[in-house]
Amino acid sequence: MVRAVHDYIAAFDKNDPELVVVLFAENGTVEDPVGAQIIKGRAAIRDFYTRAMAGGAKLSLEGAVRTIANHAAFAFSARFDPAGDIRIEIIDTFRFDDQGKVAEMRAFWGPGNMHGFKAR
Amino acid sequence: MVRAVHDYIAAFDKNDPELVVVLFAENGTVEDPVGAQIIKGRAAIRDFYTRAMAGGAKLSLEGAVRTIANHAAFAFSARFDPAGDIRIEIIDTFRFDDQGKVAEMRAFWGPGNMHGFKAR
Repeated sequence: MVRAVHDYIAAFDKNDPELVVVLFAENGTVEDPVGAQIIKGRAAIRDFYTRAMAGGAKLSLEGAVRTIANHAAFAFSARFDPAGDIRIEIIDTFRFDDQGKVAEMRAFWGPGNMHGFKAR
Repeated sequence: MVRAVHDYIAAFDKNDPELVVVLFAENGTVEDPVGAQIIKGRAAIRDFYTRAMAGGAKLSLEGAVRTIANHAAFAFSARFDPAGDIRIEIIDTFRFDDQGKVAEMRAFWGPGNMHGFKAR
């Protein structure tokens, strides 16, 4: 599970959505942020991460990945400039299936966690 | 929600379980760690935190509290000595009810997040 999280972070560095898609179960779900419409299935997940990476986000892990049973949780920032002045602070939780694939991803972040974004 | 998290952290500093109990809804639940039997209701929650505080845990928040809709997530360490050499790295998620009370708490941590504990 820790390796899956590190692979997830690295996929953004490599700007390769496929490296995220393969981490998910065929019918995996993404709820990002929590409360948003839940995305289901690899095709929809591919679209979601393709857009996310096109936005230029790079992820910096903050502290250890927490793991228990078939769950992982980790804090990170999504940086939209090299210095990280434009960033979103996020905590993700992953629930894994028996094959070690991510069955459920939930992302906890909101307006209060966005920094450096200008009003249009 | 951010204030509730700070009150939660401070309750451990003050070693006062009641300061945690009042943050919870009457029928609130605690799942600590995720996958463990779920504790329900203020009386059981009081017992749980009384024992947790008797163990001497002090909490150090790590990074910003993430908040969205009626959810909060936060990373912290529970220190069992002043230097923090004996510690557990944890991420908690809180779901709040309409009254701003914690309806559901889940704690993500496992053996891989425990540091400085000696085998008996």
